[in-house]
Amino acid sequence: MSLLVVGSVALDDVETPFGRREGALGGAAVYFGIAASYFVDVRVVGVVGADFPQEHLDLLVSRGLDLSGLIVAPGRTFRWGGRYGYDLNARDTLYTELNVFADFDPEIPAEFRETEHVFLANIAPALQLKVLDQVAAPETASLDTMNYWIERTPKDLREVLGRVQIVLINDYETREIAGEPNLRKAARTILGWGPRLLVVKKGEHGAVTFGPNGAFAVPGLPLETIIDPTGAGDAFAGGFLGCIASTGDTSPEGLRRATIYGSAMGSFCCESFSIDRLASLEPAEIEDRFRSFRDLTQFDHRPLLVDV
Amino acid sequence: MSLLVVGSVALDDVETPFGRREGALGGAAVYFGIAASYFVDVRVVGVVGADFPQEHLDLLVSRGLDLSGLIVAPGRTFRWGGRYGYDLNARDTLYTELNVFADFDPEIPAEFRETEHVFLANIAPALQLKVLDQVAAPETASLDTMNYWIERTPKDLREVLGRVQIVLINDYETREIAGEPNLRKAARTILGWGPRLLVVKKGEHGAVTFGPNGAFAVPGLPLETIIDPTGAGDAFAGGFLGCIASTGDTSPEGLRRATIYGSAMGSFCCESFSIDRLASLEPAEIEDRFRSFRDLTQFDHRPLLVDV
Repeated sequence: MSLLVVGSVALDDVETPFGRREGALGGAAVYFGIAASYFVDVRVVGVVGADFPQEHLDLLVSRGLDLSGLIVAPGRTFRWGGRYGYDLNARDTLYTELNVFADFDPEIPAEFRETEHVFLANIAPALQLKVLDQVAAPETASLDTMNYWIERTPKDLREVLGRVQIVLINDYETREIAGEPNLRKAARTILGWGPRLLVVKKGEHGAVTFGPNGAFAVPGLPLETIIDPTGAGDAFAGGFLGCIASTGDTSPEGLRRATIYGSAMGSFCCESFSIDRLASLEPAEIEDRFRSFRDLTQFDHRPLLVDV
Repeated sequence: MSLLVVGSVALDDVETPFGRREGALGGAAVYFGIAASYFVDVRVVGVVGADFPQEHLDLLVSRGLDLSGLIVAPGRTFRWGGRYGYDLNARDTLYTELNVFADFDPEIPAEFRETEHVFLANIAPALQLKVLDQVAAPETASLDTMNYWIERTPKDLREVLGRVQIVLINDYETREIAGEPNLRKAARTILGWGPRLLVVKKGEHGAVTFGPNGAFAVPGLPLETIIDPTGAGDAFAGGFLGCIASTGDTSPEGLRRATIYGSAMGSFCCESFSIDRLASLEPAEIEDRFRSFRDLTQFDHRPLLVDV
């Protein structure tokens, strides 16, 4: 099984209370692709500039990512600068230099067009639609988005929401897209537009999924070491969709399992700058992390007040 | 088994996007006591003014609360005014009129001094210490506190933290008391001062407990109807300690069960203004809500990447 991701490949300048990194490997397609690579073959469509370091390309290849769809264009790579305070759930974007990403017009290579699972990372909804026009009906198509597109291109966003099965966004985006402060009602609104499943990412507070079988929620793992949360949402999506692409299991149990693998990959992502931790995991570490989520959350029901 | 609560009994003026209530029955001891009353006999020590409506007293008695320790003093009842926006996790305190509560000096009636379980709601740490001096060694003593005392009377707070077994506070308070932004490290610091268990309440994001057997976390239930979150943290504490007082079970499983009953009572509290919903529950509704938390959170581990 294969999983296609279309999205940004970037160089990030990140500052947290625990240090600073310049020109670090980043971008949604990178975090997503590396996280998913533990589960399934990953194909990347994106663009970088001529300044993109060979060592970053080497690392992506070493994780098994198929970069046939990654164009190297004349000019500079997409660059993002951000700073976090002690509340790592909030960050300041210092600058966004789109550079070669400004003219990104995703062309899906012929050999990628029948990929079974497609993830549209956070790019313009119009481009997400162009990707969907180029792929043969995948088993699942999924998307992420952000406030910029919710506010500027709501019509395109609504159209692409009607053409995917899974939406992975954060809680603020969920409320903003639906124009509804109550999360459960907002989820119902969005599901009413077509998607079968909504995965709401809540940063350190975990994640909650809404679908035809109700809600499933997982709290955040209280990590001992949180260095840099950049990319954790994309790593979550990579673990989540990597699991689904690997198993083909979208039963209620299968989706719960995918949510935990997503949470595990998101949690690893926070434990270092850039992809340092995420790209150097042993499969057994991922299973151990899954078990940590079980230890954190499981309990029995022995009724105390009435016999039921 | 009995559970003693010492804390505020108030009249609240509350405004949310869903309406407004004036002179509503409120206060930490009220929310706590009503929630706990489904599990165990509850004894209240507090003070109200001569203006406190008889109907509020009648309601507390109807829930089985023993009000022998509730003094009616000349003057006006403690009054709190607050307003919530659509983000119900944040609120503005419009005013706090301590009134008779300003001179509150808790006197524990002789017949309450051997109560097995004692909860010190959010009052001055010096008063919490005075309560502990008046009770014979209870099986568990627990406390809540707030930023006001963390900043103004850190020495008293540190002393009382060394004399209780259970601390129930929110995530901001946890970080502030410990002077440490990482929640797990902050928890370790606080547990190092004496308490056996720290219960961190996170509002709509659920709760996480830290103790000798590690962490247990429960996400918030995505409620369809959230009217007024005032008192939800105290209702959580009432469900949590009511369960423990009822069962005497502080095993890891017992504490997880208590955390879910706490979460259930906190969730009911949000579904109406004041104590309307919290005070009119059937025991079977509480068990149903417990089951909703199970449906929301449970999953299996079938390893996908390696056999373990």
